[in-house]
Order: sequence, then structure tokens, then C-alpha cells
Amino acid sequence: MDIKQQVQQKIDWISQFAHDDSGGLTRLLYSKEWSLTQDLIKEEMTKHELSSEYDSIGNLFTTLNGQTEDTILIGSHIDTVKNGGQLDGQYGIIAGLIAIEYCQQYFGQPQKTISVVSLAEEEGSRFPYTFWGSRNVVNTAEPQTLLIKDNDGISLEEAMKNLNFKYNQSPNEFFKSVSHFIELHIEQGQVLERTQKQLGLVTHIVGQKRFNVNVKGQANHAGTTPMNYRKDALLASSKMIVKLNELIKQEMVITVGHLEVFPNSSNVIVGEVNFSIDLRGKDVHQLNQVEQELIKTIEMTAQQEQVEVEIDKYMDSEPVELDTQMHQQLEILCQKNNWSYEVMVSGAGHDAQIFGQLIPTALVFVPSIDGISHNPKEASKIEDLALGVKCLIEYLKEIAY
Amino acid sequence: MDIKQQVQQKIDWISQFAHDDSGGLTRLLYSKEWSLTQDLIKEEMTKHELSSEYDSIGNLFTTLNGQTEDTILIGSHIDTVKNGGQLDGQYGIIAGLIAIEYCQQYFGQPQKTISVVSLAEEEGSRFPYTFWGSRNVVNTAEPQTLLIKDNDGISLEEAMKNLNFKYNQSPNEFFKSVSHFIELHIEQGQVLERTQKQLGLVTHIVGQKRFNVNVKGQANHAGTTPMNYRKDALLASSKMIVKLNELIKQEMVITVGHLEVFPNSSNVIVGEVNFSIDLRGKDVHQLNQVEQELIKTIEMTAQQEQVEVEIDKYMDSEPVELDTQMHQQLEILCQKNNWSYEVMVSGAGHDAQIFGQLIPTALVFVPSIDGISHNPKEASKIEDLALGVKCLIEYLKEIAY
Repeated sequence: MDIKQQVQQKIDWISQFAHDDSGGLTRLLYSKEWSLTQDLIKEEMTKHELSSEYDSIGNLFTTLNGQTEDTILIGSHIDTVKNGGQLDGQYGIIAGLIAIEYCQQYFGQPQKTISVVSLAEEEGSRFPYTFWGSRNVVNTAEPQTLLIKDNDGISLEEAMKNLNFKYNQSPNEFFKSVSHFIELHIEQGQVLERTQKQLGLVTHIVGQKRFNVNVKGQANHAGTTPMNYRKDALLASSKMIVKLNELIKQEMVITVGHLEVFPNSSNVIVGEVNFSIDLRGKDVHQLNQVEQELIKTIEMTAQQEQVEVEIDKYMDSEPVELDTQMHQQLEILCQKNNWSYEVMVSGAGHDAQIFGQLIPTALVFVPSIDGISHNPKEASKIEDLALGVKCLIEYLKEIAY
Repeated sequence: MDIKQQVQQKIDWISQFAHDDSGGLTRLLYSKEWSLTQDLIKEEMTKHELSSEYDSIGNLFTTLNGQTEDTILIGSHIDTVKNGGQLDGQYGIIAGLIAIEYCQQYFGQPQKTISVVSLAEEEGSRFPYTFWGSRNVVNTAEPQTLLIKDNDGISLEEAMKNLNFKYNQSPNEFFKSVSHFIELHIEQGQVLERTQKQLGLVTHIVGQKRFNVNVKGQANHAGTTPMNYRKDALLASSKMIVKLNELIKQEMVITVGHLEVFPNSSNVIVGEVNFSIDLRGKDVHQLNQVEQELIKTIEMTAQQEQVEVEIDKYMDSEPVELDTQMHQQLEILCQKNNWSYEVMVSGAGHDAQIFGQLIPTALVFVPSIDGISHNPKEASKIEDLALGVKCLIEYLKEIAY
């Protein structure tokens, strides 16, 4: 069975318990679908004479033991968003599983230990907290997270307990042995498709700053209020949005995705607007500089338009630079094999950013069709998915043997 | 009892059946509150030896007969918006009632007949149709209106029938005898308050053009979509809104009061926006010119931003110029009495515009406090309300005697 066939077969196999009415997959953290899938992997991988073991919170490690305990960890997350697709997260897991089976069969025992982790959680879809899986591997999860509740009022701790998992206060020793982390993921964007490249070698995962902006003007009669008497919160917000888009430098992105107006009646001047700002970039200094300009721009516009403004920053994550040496090794590998690649930044968050803050980490993208993700229509060409796996196998051959 | 006291007493009297939980008034067309109030006026005015009679659809005419049938009609509407104030509409009615009582008592029988009409409906609050009252007086109501239903599925025809009113297909003869229409109304704006004037003498009621604009871009991931790949419907709409506000000429107003974005999620680029445009002005040529520029601006911006746009014009009412001779007479009256006044345009619609298209019509504003209207807080100073009534009495003395 060639790798393309294996990829297709493993996607179908790992998806079997998570199909939902939308035509996509839903597998929320510690749900029945989640538990059945992790157990499925454990059972199947054990058959292949690989060890497959849970940690205390439900991350599942499938391991090909090497001559040393020095471990190369490969992985991604098993949870999905609601009505997600069949590639986000689990592609990185099945790629790892195919790769270690291949390594075991064709290359034998490696020098370094290779382990594939099916991480419990990344999306924040059930509980409003992201990276629960990877944070527990690297010992940066926080105990107060246990109290967070899902929409049904079930706490993270209860949900874990129902499956006999338990948060471990004391740091796990395992992470000390991990020297490298590798994640394969679909791009979830259109860069590779548009540039017609087979692989994306990621140098940075962007930092994100998110803000809520509240603009208060004065609701008034659209007919009886002359233009020069107005404090139009929507006109002020529109000017802000136009100017914010002009602040952005190369390789940054800014998005106003959420906007609400009040009272929202065609014949009443808008009295109040709430809008979001999502700012992302790979350079922390540039991000901080644009943040300053953004605040100044909003405040100056508010003053000119005679409206009041409040800016609330509710997220500020720094960019993560991935490992330069691993990146160079992957570039050389691509060149040697004539695989086309794009050196790129990841605009979305990934488990790799949790590992990349602590140990040498690589993140490799394969092309998405139309950039569609978090959607039942999420798809990639099978040859692109297979090439990602080949790249992983070749890379393991180089660094684990 | 001086006029200030009479105004206060009549406001309390006419409001008695319409108080609602909001602290304001609610008196929808053909409701119990509406019917009780019209009957109250009829009964009370009959006591004063004035005739008070309904027309077929429920407009109530209280008449002081003159030596001729040539009639000066004074009036405004008895219906309110939901949770409205105590002045919009009914102030014009009580002003008329106080005025004819005064004329009857102090000046005796006039040469011309003076009639005060409590018009059935202007606001469009119960049925989505405005000026039902005045249109029936001037014979421009349309029979298909009878089929319009309220939120409870009751048709206008049924609602009328329940109170023994009925739409009369054949034009009423009465309107032929009406030579002038006069309406007193609160300004519902801040012009008089800011210019510190006692009266507003209205020359025009604005024409209104209203549009719905649909902007279609492409919803996409806020992180993985570089700026130059985007078709951001909100950025495009913001540019349109800023530019539209720059098109406006002296004495026009433009308002984007309603705006919705889809999917409205902070980390997704906006794929679609719907927004309203409300354009008003007194000059039909200027309105038409700005409409052309508005469409050009929207279409050009859409092209530049690579979004698709549809513009739907759903209202286009022409401005109404009120009677020049009546305006001059009122100006002279104000000067003679040392009443301060502002020559102004009405940015809101009023019953006067229905009459003003057919017969000599005057519309006089009294100042609103903070311009608040359609709201329980709607208020005017009692001395301003009383001055409006005095002006009406003096004017009637001049033209009816």
C-alpha cells in the first residue's frame, strides 16, 4: 500500500466515530467521540508492537523506542471545532503514525526514540481554553483551568474524571527527554495554493493582539439633526477601520471581523458601536509599534469625530520563532528531493507554538483547497497530504537514525 | 386660566387613556386607547357647542362654523409610536382645540369656518403604512392599503370594522371646501434650542431617498489570509460610509443607521455587509444629483475593493414646498409680536406634507428639549408650547376673521 492509500485509509479510520450531521466531524474534548477515537488509536498501535500510553490528562503517546531515551516528538491535536473538517489536527497525528510504522518496518530501531502524540485539545471548542493538551506535555497548564465549565455547566475537571483522567500537579518527567517537536498541519490558507508550492516551511507562528473597541456617540433623529450637530458613532468607527487598515506593515494582518451598531435603525443616527480588532504579526517589536499607532489613531479619530472611545485589549500573545536549524535541515531536504516549498509565517495558532517556546520545533504545512478550514468542506489533495508524510519520514530518517 | 395652564391641562386630559409601562404614551391606530381618546375629544368638544364628527375612517373634525364654508383646517395626528412621548402629534391637536375655543369665546363667529382635525394615523406604528389619516382627508389613500396587516395578523380593514369605521372608495366632498392647512408640531430636533428661537417657520419638508446596500466580499481566516488576498466587505463598506458623508451639500443630511456584518466573528474576515442609507434634502435637483454621485461612489469603491455590491432604493419621496404667502404672513406676525423665529426645513415627515402638495399649508415648530422625541422623555418648555398656541390664535384672527 503506497503512502497516498495509507493516508486515505487512516483518515477514514480515525474519523469513524466523529461524523456529524453537518457532513463534517465534531470531536470535542473528553466527549464520547473523543474517547472512542483515542482508544481506537491506542488499540491499533499496540497491535503494531508499538507502545501506546496515555498521560494523566489523556494525551496519547505512541512510541517507537530508540537506543536512547532522547525523544523526537511528533504530533497535533485530536479535538475538532464543532462541525469541523477531516484534516485540522488529525492529519498531523495520522502523518506521525504512518511515519513511525514506516520507520519501524523499513529502518528498524532508531537511535533516538520517536513518539507520536495525539494531543487531547487545542481548539478551545468545548471549554474556553486552548492548548490544554500541549500545555500539559510541557508543564505550563494552570490548575485554575480545571474549574472552567462547558456550555452544559460541566467543569474540565469533572469531564476528565468521567474518563478516569486527572490533572497532575507535579510536572511530568517525560518532557525532559524530548529534544525536538515536529507538527504537520494543513495550511488553512491560500498561500501554497496560489504560489503552487507543495510544502510550507514555517519560520514563525504569529503573535496576536486582540481588542474590543467601544465607540459612544449620540443616537439622534436622522432627519432633524443637521450634519454639524451629529456625533455619529458609525461614521467615526468607519474612519477608524479605514485608518487601521493603513497602519499595517509587510507580513502583518489586521481584521475587524465583529461589529455591532446601536440602535441599528435606518432612520436613527448610530449612537454606539462595538467592534473587534485582531492584529497578527511575526515581529514582536513591529506588533508593539503598530499597537501604539493603533491606539493613537483610534483616540485621535474619536476626538475629531467628538465621540468617546474605550479600547480593551483582551489577548496579547507573543510571536514564536521556530527552530532555525530544523528549518534549514528541512529546506535542504526539500531541495534534495525537488519538493517545491514556501518559507512562510503561520497566521493561525498551532500546538507547535507551545513546544516552540521551549524546545527546537518545526511546523510544516501542506496546501489547503481554497483555504477552507473549520468547515465540513475542509480538504487537501491526497498527493499533497502524502508528500507531507514522505517529508516527515525522510526527515526522521535523517535526525532519528 | 391662561394659555400655559390650558396647554398643561389639555395634555394631561388627552393623554389619560394612553399611558404605558414605559412612562410614555402608546396609542396605536384603532386600538382601545385610540378609540377612547377620539371619543373623549368628541364628547368634550360637543359640550363647548362645537360640532365634532368622525369621517368614515375615523378622522375626527371639531368645527367652529364660519359665515362661509371656506375652511381653515388645523390638525395633526392622534396616534403615537410605541412608547412615545406626550407631544408628538397630539400637541398639534390640543393647540387647535384651545385656539378654536379661544376664537369662539373672544372673537365670536369667524368669517371662514375653522376646523381642527385629530388625524387617525401618521406614524406607521401599527401597520407599515404612514399618513393614513391625512391621505383619507385629501383623497389620496389607496384601497390596497386595507389588506396590510399588523403584527397580530389583523388587517387594517378589520381593525377599522371593529370600530365601525370603513374606507370610503368615493372621494369625500369636504376637502373641496378646505382652503388652508395649518399644523403645529414639536421640532424633534435641536435647531431651535441651539439657536434660542421660540418658533420654527418651516419652508420645506424634505424629500427622502432610502436605500439598502448589500456588499459581498469573501469570509476568510483572519490569520492565514494575507492582506492582499482579501475581499473584506466591512473595509469596503467603511470606505463607502466615509465617502458618502463627504457627498452631502448644505442643508442635506445623510445617515447610515442600520448595518449588519456576516459572519460577525472577531477572527473571520467579514464576508458580507448590509447597510441602509437615508438621504434627505429640500431641493429635488440636489437630491437627484447626490443620488447619482452616491451610486457612482459605492460602485467605484466596490470595484477598487474587489467586492460585489447591490443597491436597492426602497423609498423616494419628493420634497414639499409649503405655502410662501402663509409663511410671509407668519413671519410678519412674529415680527409684530417680537417672537423670535427660525426659518427652517423639516427633516422629518409630517401630515403637513400631504396637505402641502395640494393646498396652501403652513407648518410651525416649537422647540424640543434636547431634540428628544419618539421617547417617553420627549418634552418642551410649557412657555414654548403656549407661545405656539398664541401664534396660532393670532394667525387665525388674521386669516379667518
